[in-house]
Amino acid sequence: MKIIKLKETITASNDRDAEVLREELRGSHTLLINLMASPGAGKTTLLERTIRDVGDRVRIGIVEADIDSDVDARRLAELGVPAVQAHTNGMCHMDAGMTRTALTELGFREPDLIFLENVGNLICPAEFDTGAGRNVMILSVPEGDDKPLKYPLMFTKSDVLLITKTDTMGVFDFDIGRCTERARKLNPELLVFPVSAKTGEGIEAWEEWLLGETAKWQE
Amino acid sequence: MKIIKLKETITASNDRDAEVLREELRGSHTLLINLMASPGAGKTTLLERTIRDVGDRVRIGIVEADIDSDVDARRLAELGVPAVQAHTNGMCHMDAGMTRTALTELGFREPDLIFLENVGNLICPAEFDTGAGRNVMILSVPEGDDKPLKYPLMFTKSDVLLITKTDTMGVFDFDIGRCTERARKLNPELLVFPVSAKTGEGIEAWEEWLLGETAKWQE
Repeated sequence: MKIIKLKETITASNDRDAEVLREELRGSHTLLINLMASPGAGKTTLLERTIRDVGDRVRIGIVEADIDSDVDARRLAELGVPAVQAHTNGMCHMDAGMTRTALTELGFREPDLIFLENVGNLICPAEFDTGAGRNVMILSVPEGDDKPLKYPLMFTKSDVLLITKTDTMGVFDFDIGRCTERARKLNPELLVFPVSAKTGEGIEAWEEWLLGETAKWQE
Repeated sequence: MKIIKLKETITASNDRDAEVLREELRGSHTLLINLMASPGAGKTTLLERTIRDVGDRVRIGIVEADIDSDVDARRLAELGVPAVQAHTNGMCHMDAGMTRTALTELGFREPDLIFLENVGNLICPAEFDTGAGRNVMILSVPEGDDKPLKYPLMFTKSDVLLITKTDTMGVFDFDIGRCTERARKLNPELLVFPVSAKTGEGIEAWEEWLLGETAKWQE
């Protein structure tokens, strides 16, 4: 597992860089998934579960983006997947140039599926196209079902919303229907998967979608 | 309850602006508390509880900073405290100039104690001095006790760490001792209050500290 330090790409053309990277990934039949969420929403736990469940069917690679520390990358590298830890030098997001640097370090031609675990934050990551083929966001039950009202851009930019920690629904006042309705007002195409990485509830639907998307990239 | 739109202060001297604002607040015997946390950590719920408990002993004012929506300010205004909703125009933080604008709208000479509920985010708000007399951060039990490793600056800049939702300790693997140790490595002076706004556990110690600090500002 490598640790690399990144600097923000000084370019007004992040959107173009992202498009070029996306095309390159398409050419190498690699699906890059940009995974975004608040701190502590359960990104790494969901990835652990997903790698355990489907890691024998697709070749997975991991880029962990954090301001500091390498705890997440170490956790995932222990599962035997190639993992790179990217430090964002204090920045709250990954852009396309930073993503390219991290992918180059990882070697992006080998895996079928690469997860970019973006910096824990519901605001900044949504503002920068990373070049990913799909944007997936996590909202955990303890955070509350009002988040689409407060962080609309993240919900607008995502293809999939994973509502995690559903095993704690009894403890928190969270209404999946209300949350889905609020999110789909911003983004009518949004796919919503309620899951618990702990009990496994709902995980199958998420992993089916994931394998289906990965297969599309192989075409 | 007013809603105002803010623009970032274009100035290299945010630190100086913050110092000037802090002195002005001292002159008007107003303690401004900058409250920072992830989305969904329970900032507004904690404020509701605190206003209910001590609102008859000190005059409280509220500035709610959000990218969008006014749900939080409306919740708090219902408790009869003056509240201003500030929209940050997409930005992930409040700076001293933005804080001054919001305080001016609120009228900062009346309250003894003003809470600035900063944008939900563990990164950007820590980077800008708002002019507050005290910085208080919230980490909720569901987020996990590894957050000091991943968002060190926030823990370094805070005077107080509130560990909230302690009533869910049985559901999540969170070690208060381990979290406190990690946080104090970054900031040995950090005060830590584990609280549950739901059950009231630990709330008294937090409110005692708060009333003590507010009294100091009255001197």
